[in-house]
Amino acid sequence: MSFTLTLTELAKITAASAIEGSRTAPIKAIASLADAGSDDLSFLGNPKYSTAVATSKAGVILVPADYAGKPNAEQVYLRVEKPSYALALICSALEAQLWPQPASGIHASAVIAKTAKIDSTATIGPLCVVGENSTIGAGVVLEAQCFIGANVSIGPRSWFKSGVTIADYCIVGARCRFQSGVVIGSDGFGYEPVGQEIHRIPQIGNVVLEDDVEVGANTTIDRARFSQTTIGRGTKIDNLVQIAHNVRIGKQCLIAAQVGIAGSSTLGDYCVLGGQAGVAGHLTLGDRVQLGAQTGLFQDVATNEFYNGTPAIPIGLERRLVVLSRKLPDLFKKVDSLAASLDSVRRPNS
Amino acid sequence: MSFTLTLTELAKITAASAIEGSRTAPIKAIASLADAGSDDLSFLGNPKYSTAVATSKAGVILVPADYAGKPNAEQVYLRVEKPSYALALICSALEAQLWPQPASGIHASAVIAKTAKIDSTATIGPLCVVGENSTIGAGVVLEAQCFIGANVSIGPRSWFKSGVTIADYCIVGARCRFQSGVVIGSDGFGYEPVGQEIHRIPQIGNVVLEDDVEVGANTTIDRARFSQTTIGRGTKIDNLVQIAHNVRIGKQCLIAAQVGIAGSSTLGDYCVLGGQAGVAGHLTLGDRVQLGAQTGLFQDVATNEFYNGTPAIPIGLERRLVVLSRKLPDLFKKVDSLAASLDSVRRPNS
Amino acid sequence: MSFTLTLTELAKITAASAIEGSRTAPIKAIASLADAGSDDLSFLGNPKYSTAVATSKAGVILVPADYAGKPNAEQVYLRVEKPSYALALICSALEAQLWPQPASGIHASAVIAKTAKIDSTATIGPLCVVGENSTIGAGVVLEAQCFIGANVSIGPRSWFKSGVTIADYCIVGARCRFQSGVVIGSDGFGYEPVGQEIHRIPQIGNVVLEDDVEVGANTTIDRARFSQTTIGRGTKIDNLVQIAHNVRIGKQCLIAAQVGIAGSSTLGDYCVLGGQAGVAGHLTLGDRVQLGAQTGLFQDVATNEFYNGTPAIPIGLERRLVVLSRKLPDLFKKVDSLAASLDSVRRPNS
Repeated sequence: MSFTLTLTELAKITAASAIEGSRTAPIKAIASLADAGSDDLSFLGNPKYSTAVATSKAGVILVPADYAGKPNAEQVYLRVEKPSYALALICSALEAQLWPQPASGIHASAVIAKTAKIDSTATIGPLCVVGENSTIGAGVVLEAQCFIGANVSIGPRSWFKSGVTIADYCIVGARCRFQSGVVIGSDGFGYEPVGQEIHRIPQIGNVVLEDDVEVGANTTIDRARFSQTTIGRGTKIDNLVQIAHNVRIGKQCLIAAQVGIAGSSTLGDYCVLGGQAGVAGHLTLGDRVQLGAQTGLFQDVATNEFYNGTPAIPIGLERRLVVLSRKLPDLFKKVDSLAASLDSVRRPNS
Repeated sequence: MSFTLTLTELAKITAASAIEGSRTAPIKAIASLADAGSDDLSFLGNPKYSTAVATSKAGVILVPADYAGKPNAEQVYLRVEKPSYALALICSALEAQLWPQPASGIHASAVIAKTAKIDSTATIGPLCVVGENSTIGAGVVLEAQCFIGANVSIGPRSWFKSGVTIADYCIVGARCRFQSGVVIGSDGFGYEPVGQEIHRIPQIGNVVLEDDVEVGANTTIDRARFSQTTIGRGTKIDNLVQIAHNVRIGKQCLIAAQVGIAGSSTLGDYCVLGGQAGVAGHLTLGDRVQLGAQTGLFQDVATNEFYNGTPAIPIGLERRLVVLSRKLPDLFKKVDSLAASLDSVRRPNS
Repeated sequence: MSFTLTLTELAKITAASAIEGSRTAPIKAIASLADAGSDDLSFLGNPKYSTAVATSKAGVILVPADYAGKPNAEQVYLRVEKPSYALALICSALEAQLWPQPASGIHASAVIAKTAKIDSTATIGPLCVVGENSTIGAGVVLEAQCFIGANVSIGPRSWFKSGVTIADYCIVGARCRFQSGVVIGSDGFGYEPVGQEIHRIPQIGNVVLEDDVEVGANTTIDRARFSQTTIGRGTKIDNLVQIAHNVRIGKQCLIAAQVGIAGSSTLGDYCVLGGQAGVAGHLTLGDRVQLGAQTGLFQDVATNEFYNGTPAIPIGLERRLVVLSRKLPDLFKKVDSLAASLDSVRRPNS
């Protein structure tokens, strides 16, 4: 993918305090200091890479105001307060170029129920389905092939990549963002044994996503048995995550890829769960709880605690146990040696 | 989501033996004793929550026949034999209201092959595809955007949420149920190294799901290399589960979310696999085998055994090892102390 | 699923050196020696199953040239150099029968942007979407309901099962193969805390898949923050795998189901990752690195190393630690016994 940004545009976007060196060709891509070529922009995001600046072939480099070096020939330094933030500003400008808000309106191939209420500023892409009595807010974008069931409410300016499913009766807040393949409102996994058979327990609740929630590709969030599965305002969920029925997640949490949270567990605000972590059912996690990657949690965790391992324990203890476990070969030898020594003490004449 | 059920309807559905208290407003939702408001129905499902009944604000509470309390003002108790079962009856009645069987027929936007045989009582929703020579049984519902490949057979009264894929040549029994994003019949992952390249092994088998199988959102079940991948009658599979080629799962098993079962492994009947558990390839598990969450199984397991941990071992031993591993810091200290003591015994004069 | 192959066809496909026995009915399926019936073909793929040949009811059996037995009545032996390879030849022939290249052309229900360039020999199935400025190469097959975004390039003869998503700006090589539900080009999971809020970092890179890459059902591969997420030539990825932004995977790797690879990690060529393994972010793995199933890797790994466990260590050490950990009950007892013995030595008269 490519784009074009002139030096003038870059300086303006980044509010650069100084432009050193000169070039006329526009920048066409972004790359790391090591990978960049003469048409690329790069940046010194971390002081530990300072030595890579001088040897970088990047056409333009974002450097901190106090960086000591000077640009090579045909190279430009843009001096900025914080290069990584300046880069984010550039990326935001480029994103708006690459993915502009599409024209509003309903594609002719979409299938819209008669009783659906779709705001005139929303965009409904090709081959989408919107069910009866559903409401689509202002500025919402459904890119293509999305399924919005019946009695669904979608808040303003939420954006759906292709192939997202929001099943019947679910509620989505404002400015939410969904990657492809997301399934919101699948049935909870509720069964009970009845003799030799397993009977399905009806799942008649829904899922409520508050404002600014983002959900990654192919992630699944089940509807509640009754009542609601809820995801708090601003929480971000990565790809292939499973959130079971009746789970309640607080605000501004970060849930990494392939995490699984079993039924009826509750997370506080600002929790961070590492990739592939699992949370058993009916647990309560306080605010700002952290779980390491692949952790398997089977107990409640208090506010501010960081748990790790399977079964999970406080990370300090877990780290210590890992270190000791690696010394087991020595320990076994030492115990054998002690036993032999003791034997010789007890039976000195044998 | 909301609904309306009058007291008379509730009493009839639950076969209540007594109605205590009175109210005229209908019930609009279901909630736990703690969360319920005056328009909600709640229930005493577990005696340990008995004290929550008296303080609950629920408009209607299902209580056991022998529960000692009396309803508050504007509150009603329905006395029933088993409140949790009575609740299930109510949920079933509500589910039938919320998701009635849709009208039969084929939506105009669906793409149906000429040679497909679709029962006149089946419902084919918008933007579905049904391939050549496939058969769709009586009362089957494809909600929307489902893909049924060629030469597929779907048994009567199976229900497909939106976006389900049943690939070519697969066979689905009666009364099966699929959540959105399910993929049945993807190619098995079969490759063999040929020199410096990896060659694909054709996967020409299929998947056979017996009656009453249910499959969760975004779960994948691969077709066999040749012959069949089979899921036995009544087995229930949660979201994001991976079932590889040539796996055979028995009857009435419960497979929790994010489980992975590698190629050619065989499970007996009534097995229960916890979330994120993994089963290596070519293993045999007997009937009623249980695996704990996140277990990694690398060996056969006999009937009735419960394995846990990675690599998995019988849960009794695994629990014991976990307890001992947490005492490692003490053990290391104790051994050091023993060594010092022994040293002083051996060299008393040093 | 069934097919028909005559004895003459089978002998030709497998280049059989001898046909022993006779039958007139064609073969309709393939099965193991134990499962096969009179209409099935089976094979002796592994000498350890030699005794199963004599009792097999298979109508046709592929046996090595030097196999000592003779066919039963109504049974045929085809003597071939390598039965498992001969079987693969048969499966390839059957696959070509079962999944012939479909007729080229664009289905009337597909939605194709005006600026898309679609080769006249490509097949675009029902209800597919192809976005602006995208290029679809010669002989490409999109089975149904696929989404190809804007500015995408698809190399010749790549095959897409139903419901595959290739998002905007991504590049797919020649002869790639995608199972249903794959999502290529979802946003990377990039956020940064700003006060009490979490801000999204725009993800403006893309994904580049080189030639002969294959991707399993419901697997997700995120676009880079900027620059590219790359999958090297010939690499095969199983179902439900998560590959995060900026990951670089080398050539001819095998990634089993439910693996997760976190952001910016780099894998060399010929790596093999077992099911459910996790690789933390910003790591470097050399060529031919292997990870066992469920491994959790948190450090770089040099070429040719095999790591296992969580946190992962070289498999030799990991296996040894597992063995020792199972002896912990004995070790604790032994230490207690030593302490008692030592005590009696130190206080002989007490």
